[in-house]
Amino acid sequence: MSKLYAITSENISIEEVVNKVTRRECGAINTFLGTVREWTKGRQTLSLTYEAYIPMAEKKLAQIGEEIAARWPDAQCAITHRIGELHISDIAVIIAVSTPHRADSYEASRYAIERIKEIVPIWKKEHWHDGTEWIGNQQETKAYPFGKPSKEEM
Amino acid sequence: MSKLYAITSENISIEEVVNKVTRRECGAINTFLGTVREWTKGRQTLSLTYEAYIPMAEKKLAQIGEEIAARWPDAQCAITHRIGELHISDIAVIIAVSTPHRADSYEASRYAIERIKEIVPIWKKEHWHDGTEWIGNQQETKAYPFGKPSKEEM
Repeated sequence: MSKLYAITSENISIEEVVNKVTRRECGAINTFLGTVREWTKGRQTLSLTYEAYIPMAEKKLAQIGEEIAARWPDAQCAITHRIGELHISDIAVIIAVSTPHRADSYEASRYAIERIKEIVPIWKKEHWHDGTEWIGNQQETKAYPFGKPSKEEM
Repeated sequence: MSKLYAITSENISIEEVVNKVTRRECGAINTFLGTVREWTKGRQTLSLTYEAYIPMAEKKLAQIGEEIAARWPDAQCAITHRIGELHISDIAVIIAVSTPHRADSYEASRYAIERIKEIVPIWKKEHWHDGTEWIGNQQETKAYPFGKPSKEEM
């Protein structure tokens, strides 16, 4: 778990990810935690199962880090995304961004979560109160009939 | 430390503050950590001493929570600010905001840190490499010759 950009099946420690970006030249650290929400448009979630193509997902997370370094040269970013079965309020993803001044930490962190939704090959199965469903891509614009994209779709 | 809006002289646990706002109906938690930066405009900080009028500072932090509740009714906020002697990279302040959806968590968190700088009576003494200095108010627009505002200035 010392990698800056990691996929894990373990519980995520916020402190551990924050420690990866803590630096003497920084006065600001923004963190974003994506947690499992119980209700979505009136429908109750019991749990979620996340899956990923791990090597490609970590590569895409690292790419987001490079994009951030290009836009905010003083920023240091770390991202960990969890896979496997998650329950309500579990942390699915954590982003930490340290910067000398606070405005950049917010902007780079926000950029990171939007890009994760756009380009990282992670998908989830909703275990609803009334059935289960593979959600497709993270933007929910594409369904995967077999739960995940084909090799060609990647 | 179970208060949502607290001033403390202890080391701040990120997990503890995050736990105060974690809720089943939320999918997003934004946290902001203000840390002690070593360099400011080419000048080296060795340590900082923060002081506060504690009851009024906690009252003002709670007021920020009320302002957030008025603007983002689904948000829950918690803020802890540390006082006393802090060293490089120590966490001086932590804000945590949980919301059902991510955009609000970023906006409310950013709002909180700006308001903390504006209205919370906390001030600091810089222990520079080449001397010490009381900084005045948090926006550094007003110097306090005796280190802190007079009762009248509060």
